[in-house]
Amino acid sequence: MRIAFIGLGNMGAPMARNLVKAGHSLNVFDLNTTVLAEFKELGCTLSASPREAAQSGELVITMLPAATHVRSVYLNEDGVLAGIRAGTPAVDCSTIDPQTAQLISTEAAKQGVALADAPVSGGTGGAAAGTLTFMVGATDDLFGQLQPVLAQMGRNIVHCGAVGTGQIAKICNNLLLGISMIGVSEAMALGNALGIDTKVLAGVINSSTGRCWSSDTYNPWPGIIETAPASRGYTGGFGAELMLKDLGLATEAARQAHQPVILGAVAQQLYQAMSLRGEGGKDFSAIVEGYLKQE
Amino acid sequence: MRIAFIGLGNMGAPMARNLVKAGHSLNVFDLNTTVLAEFKELGCTLSASPREAAQSGELVITMLPAATHVRSVYLNEDGVLAGIRAGTPAVDCSTIDPQTAQLISTEAAKQGVALADAPVSGGTGGAAAGTLTFMVGATDDLFGQLQPVLAQMGRNIVHCGAVGTGQIAKICNNLLLGISMIGVSEAMALGNALGIDTKVLAGVINSSTGRCWSSDTYNPWPGIIETAPASRGYTGGFGAELMLKDLGLATEAARQAHQPVILGAVAQQLYQAMSLRGEGGKDFSAIVEGYLKQE
Amino acid sequence: MRIAFIGLGNMGAPMARNLVKAGHSLNVFDLNTTVLAEFKELGCTLSASPREAAQSGELVITMLPAATHVRSVYLNEDGVLAGIRAGTPAVDCSTIDPQTAQLISTEAAKQGVALADAPVSGGTGGAAAGTLTFMVGATDDLFGQLQPVLAQMGRNIVHCGAVGTGQIAKICNNLLLGISMIGVSEAMALGNALGIDTKVLAGVINSSTGRCWSSDTYNPWPGIIETAPASRGYTGGFGAELMLKDLGLATEAARQAHQPVILGAVAQQLYQAMSLRGEGGKDFSAIVEGYLKQE
Amino acid sequence: MRIAFIGLGNMGAPMARNLVKAGHSLNVFDLNTTVLAEFKELGCTLSASPREAAQSGELVITMLPAATHVRSVYLNEDGVLAGIRAGTPAVDCSTIDPQTAQLISTEAAKQGVALADAPVSGGTGGAAAGTLTFMVGATDDLFGQLQPVLAQMGRNIVHCGAVGTGQIAKICNNLLLGISMIGVSEAMALGNALGIDTKVLAGVINSSTGRCWSSDTYNPWPGIIETAPASRGYTGGFGAELMLKDLGLATEAARQAHQPVILGAVAQQLYQAMSLRGEGGKDFSAIVEGYLKQE
Repeated sequence: MRIAFIGLGNMGAPMARNLVKAGHSLNVFDLNTTVLAEFKELGCTLSASPREAAQSGELVITMLPAATHVRSVYLNEDGVLAGIRAGTPAVDCSTIDPQTAQLISTEAAKQGVALADAPVSGGTGGAAAGTLTFMVGATDDLFGQLQPVLAQMGRNIVHCGAVGTGQIAKICNNLLLGISMIGVSEAMALGNALGIDTKVLAGVINSSTGRCWSSDTYNPWPGIIETAPASRGYTGGFGAELMLKDLGLATEAARQAHQPVILGAVAQQLYQAMSLRGEGGKDFSAIVEGYLKQE
Repeated sequence: MRIAFIGLGNMGAPMARNLVKAGHSLNVFDLNTTVLAEFKELGCTLSASPREAAQSGELVITMLPAATHVRSVYLNEDGVLAGIRAGTPAVDCSTIDPQTAQLISTEAAKQGVALADAPVSGGTGGAAAGTLTFMVGATDDLFGQLQPVLAQMGRNIVHCGAVGTGQIAKICNNLLLGISMIGVSEAMALGNALGIDTKVLAGVINSSTGRCWSSDTYNPWPGIIETAPASRGYTGGFGAELMLKDLGLATEAARQAHQPVILGAVAQQLYQAMSLRGEGGKDFSAIVEGYLKQE
Repeated sequence: MRIAFIGLGNMGAPMARNLVKAGHSLNVFDLNTTVLAEFKELGCTLSASPREAAQSGELVITMLPAATHVRSVYLNEDGVLAGIRAGTPAVDCSTIDPQTAQLISTEAAKQGVALADAPVSGGTGGAAAGTLTFMVGATDDLFGQLQPVLAQMGRNIVHCGAVGTGQIAKICNNLLLGISMIGVSEAMALGNALGIDTKVLAGVINSSTGRCWSSDTYNPWPGIIETAPASRGYTGGFGAELMLKDLGLATEAARQAHQPVILGAVAQQLYQAMSLRGEGGKDFSAIVEGYLKQE
Repeated sequence: MRIAFIGLGNMGAPMARNLVKAGHSLNVFDLNTTVLAEFKELGCTLSASPREAAQSGELVITMLPAATHVRSVYLNEDGVLAGIRAGTPAVDCSTIDPQTAQLISTEAAKQGVALADAPVSGGTGGAAAGTLTFMVGATDDLFGQLQPVLAQMGRNIVHCGAVGTGQIAKICNNLLLGISMIGVSEAMALGNALGIDTKVLAGVINSSTGRCWSSDTYNPWPGIIETAPASRGYTGGFGAELMLKDLGLATEAARQAHQPVILGAVAQQLYQAMSLRGEGGKDFSAIVEGYLKQE
């Protein structure tokens, strides 16, 4: 299939590579000429604009940093909607607010284009390994069309409902994740301060009612889980700045929906304080360091 | 074995029944004459005081509501330490602060008595079914002696370290549990307000990084988990007042250890507000009701 | 002076009336025909659009609900900037985010128009009485031009710095106000629960280090301050929804500036929860009701 | 008058000196021999125990660090109640929990002794200058007896109600103070980050609805108020550890009264985190430093 792929950043590039491996022909667009050169080597067609990339595509995939980029890549004069043919499906894999996802979809529909939102989880590692989870907001028909292609970039392709629900699922999950990680950090730091062995404590939690992904898979205390960022100096993983971005999306969506998210708002501020201390580049589990006595 | 069992409340009574079933002879003490009559029927010896119960016991087990009761049951003139023979092991299954556990243990040691703390999780259901988890703070020797008897009342007998660490493990786990349940409540309520199907959302969370016991086993949203209190009007389960008690122990222990627990403190206040609204008798997962629009 | 006045809502109408009283000729614009009819009676000229109002104005004043309205009133085809003559000063009295204020000012400057932001405090009462406080972001020259006219609508005209600083001053003050009011509510409710007479407690606070406007002028406990909304069923005053709007502006500005505002974020969520309970139409001091036992 | 004065610490010593200056004869007790030597020089009688000090006193005054000291100084074998004559008034100026104040009063009453609680505000500066505020919990009769003597150590002697209400007034005021100081810190730091001059911002706040003692008298931003600790490196003043103690009393009293104090609990945790960072010895207004970008 000829696929227009727009956005070849840390996530987009490995995703696009998996599509090349799967045998697709790609029209690619990005502002970074280094990565473009690499995709030329792989046999992809370089496009001069999102519009040009979309013109000959049988499917359009976008993977961009934030809503402002999504808006301009789709809606500008040189954008996707200026080039795409009616009937061609499109899917935006960026993590953005649900309202923008719905707005772009509405604009696309005016030209006979069905657009899905499909934000991912799994990080750059999952993108490279082709094991991402896609949370897809789309009609049943569109989901059916997209599923086989998304499955070439990910392992778990979940249909969440109408357009926008992919974004909703992601921000709700990450709201909970941001809270849980701080909860585990407080529990581990308190146990340590009170004198229990932290491995024993993690063992109790992981076989009891405190059990969660932030404890049993990604524990923020060094040495508990060998594969977690905490055991390698909080490098790799999911950066605190990305968590901040997602909590910002969640609390802003909550504000617009007149829905309180009390712990979520406190969590956002605690990651913000971590960022202010200059620690925003670390994995988000380094939030635990704010709970430790400084020597 | 002849066992002195003191405290036959909602938890203690079913635990003691399991010991009777296992063939032990019990000296029992409680202030509630109704429950005493029942244990007389079962062939137990009624004692006039904790001291009298302890005198002929080969093991002393206590299960009491709070630290103040533990202190008087052990230290009063008519208390356990006034009757127990040197060399007899004792175990307190109450949930109290670690300092009191250590204090009672120190007093017991003066009389040649080794005392363990062994708070439980699993609720009244687990007590009846004999499937409790015991978090045990004790020397290796004492743990070895207690393990077989505790195993007649529970399924998971965890040695957490020296005396007091059982309490520490429990309050750290429940601190995290209290936070996680609110985190799940905020995520589910936000998703619902934004328009995603709550079953779909729970499915995404439970197969992703938000996964936790409060979501996959005890989800606060009605109809997600058929066996959870949320699906039967928030009855049964673990009452909000009990969660409040445990969060009070956790934040007080944190205060004494000069350890911040920011989300934990907010969680405590939110359950307190729930209690003020007259909802403290419900299962703690009813905290989600504070996040729903009132009709 | 001929003044174009756009936005005759609860705040704008009484402000405009004071300008009429002061002898100015007004071109007015609003979407509400009832209020237009009233201003016609007062001898004002009704304009068909912001553009038309601006065309013959020697000064343009706008007072609108939110940034989206400010953007369209100034930038639309029929907007102020399409009609205003170069050299005519303009002042926006709406409460909006500082970025939008700066953006509109930049657009205005392209046409030789100096624009100030001048959000107010004092409420509808202050607007009617002409006792508003104006927090003005403007160059020194522009401030000098505006000051005499603003003084006909208010008592305290503060020059805060360059354009945008009026909005900054207002959202920082209201962030603190939103927090203080909850602080006073918690202190009064706790004192009441512990058994001190609330008038005595307010007296202690007001002559001590807890002293603040939320306690000595606008105390949320009924009967403490006779002129406060608390003493008349939380009617009149500054609605909780307006406080929510301002806290939303503050936390969003903080997010963009990477600045934590921890208590501010919790305060926002608590007013949001009050709104969810259906109490958002009350004065914001009714936040205290969430701290009282419900009968 | 012959006065027994027990507790000659940072607060007690200057208070006792003011009584000596006023012409009273003092029996003094403390564990610190250096300070005792100084009071001997002043002509005071050194007592071997609180009991001995109380025996010949016509009035007993105590000023101690915490409830545990108050309990032992009054109730021990060598304590005040073992020596005091029936009919002699007593007043405890320590800051402790209201329950302990009431308990000691009840014990005193059994011996015909009327006891008041009278915690102070004003710090060591106010103690030296004789300008303390006393918040007195006492019967009308006892208040009448104590007022003239307290007025020799302070300027503002407030009768708050029955015994215990002095403590209640103090912890409620300081709960609010702890919150307000963080509120001012967040407002000032946000304004600074957004680009307004901090002196201008403080001026707006202090003439508007954000006005409070923490802003207009003790502003945490350096250089705003010349006499505030912020303008001298956060030295002197009211240490963060003392604020932590008072917030601990407030949240514990709230817990026992089943009363939520949400912002109060967060404030306690934020000062706790400041203490963990090793900053607990600074004035409590240094909480603002946690909101500043670290170089």
